[in-house]
Amino acid sequence: VAPLSRLSFNQMTAGKATLREVVDACVKHGVDWIGPWRHAVREDPVAARRLIRDAGLRVSSLCRGGMFPAATPEERRKKIEDNLRAIDEAAALGTDLLVLVNGSAPDRDIDGARQMVVDGIAAIVDHAEKSGVRLGVEPLHPMFAADRSVVVTMGGANDIAARFDAKRVGLVVDVYHIWWDPQVYAEIARAGDRIFAFHVSDWIVPTPDMLMGRGMMGDGVIEISRLRGAVERAGYSGPIEVEIFNEALWAQSADAIVDVVARRFQEFV
Amino acid sequence: VAPLSRLSFNQMTAGKATLREVVDACVKHGVDWIGPWRHAVREDPVAARRLIRDAGLRVSSLCRGGMFPAATPEERRKKIEDNLRAIDEAAALGTDLLVLVNGSAPDRDIDGARQMVVDGIAAIVDHAEKSGVRLGVEPLHPMFAADRSVVVTMGGANDIAARFDAKRVGLVVDVYHIWWDPQVYAEIARAGDRIFAFHVSDWIVPTPDMLMGRGMMGDGVIEISRLRGAVERAGYSGPIEVEIFNEALWAQSADAIVDVVARRFQEFV
Repeated sequence: VAPLSRLSFNQMTAGKATLREVVDACVKHGVDWIGPWRHAVREDPVAARRLIRDAGLRVSSLCRGGMFPAATPEERRKKIEDNLRAIDEAAALGTDLLVLVNGSAPDRDIDGARQMVVDGIAAIVDHAEKSGVRLGVEPLHPMFAADRSVVVTMGGANDIAARFDAKRVGLVVDVYHIWWDPQVYAEIARAGDRIFAFHVSDWIVPTPDMLMGRGMMGDGVIEISRLRGAVERAGYSGPIEVEIFNEALWAQSADAIVDVVARRFQEFV
Repeated sequence: VAPLSRLSFNQMTAGKATLREVVDACVKHGVDWIGPWRHAVREDPVAARRLIRDAGLRVSSLCRGGMFPAATPEERRKKIEDNLRAIDEAAALGTDLLVLVNGSAPDRDIDGARQMVVDGIAAIVDHAEKSGVRLGVEPLHPMFAADRSVVVTMGGANDIAARFDAKRVGLVVDVYHIWWDPQVYAEIARAGDRIFAFHVSDWIVPTPDMLMGRGMMGDGVIEISRLRGAVERAGYSGPIEVEIFNEALWAQSADAIVDVVARRFQEFV
């Protein structure tokens, strides 16, 4: 079982709380890491960094850049500009990892959209390197292939990352998105040092909602410990982010959510 | 574009209609093939066969066997018995293909459940051969991995089928389940002569429901013609089943549903 010192609380697990409420709850429950989202920090990332550091917390990653595919070159250029801003925000926030959720095809051409992802990363990777920010390609569950990410498998993410320097472009491995894949253990081993982050939650049955239906660790069917063992054998020893989008959970206070996350983490991760 | 002569109307596309209503609508709209479900034919498959044949239709497949994994040997034995009955029903109905939807893990051990699928097929394949019935392993979309099928990729289905005689155990390729996979074209080519059936529908955005949210061909993002070309290059030239689970569609008459399916088929498949 993973020690509490590795737990990072992804801000969207308490999606309705303020950054300060989340920080306070983390301090109270002994959580050392936090994973903020851009919408909560972009107005003043330096102030957010101070709030987090003054509380004694560290930032595991910033969510999220990506969303590269678009119908026109002009739209794709705007998306690249937004990613350059995201890199600046990550650096200002004091984290070396920007999570990329890569976007969907603007038409029916999914392979074309995958190439747009590669081109988008190629357009920002130098700025990321200069800024001391690594880029983490996150494969999403295939049920999001049409509206959020054409990158839907560890294999597909590995293929994209392999085109870039292994120190600059790697993978974000989230058990919710990849647990079902018969190739998942082979692809985790293949990713090796390119695993930049590890996220946990659970797949509950029945799934209450495609986007907002993630479960608390232990409530579902995912072999979380087995997957953690695999990413650790591949070389990953960093923080483990808990990222759960769930309306029923969001209805609770940040304090109550961090409390249950910390307990479940020590039992099921 | 595929000719109307290849269209098979899967009965569940008009999920609230009787078999007779579906047969009559197929005749009216020039559809030559039908794909019944067990619940509609199991009481008297010989009478169902007569109803279908007298109307001049042919049966493309019977849905569905499978659901092999279970917590105890006794439960698994009962599931095998049910599959033996499904084979008998397929033979009585006059089709040489039983579609297998393979079931979910009784616990968190997804690889163990995949082995139970292999063991289940091994337990029924001789009876299938004697009965002149082929077994079609259908990979379902990964969003069904926890509750309907641990077989969720073409690669996983190919790995299972490869353990058996290529004339007896093959794949059912449904675009809805496999369109998102970066390996799909490689795995279709690998399947080759093992492609026993090809199903079409569309992935609409947003998806109204995980189970009942399939779309009519042309309304979504799936590259249907490209996938049809790939299965044909792999060697498949049989009927193409339209299988759409959708509440809004089911609210219409069988006549109206078959009408729109036949028109969309000739435009988008």
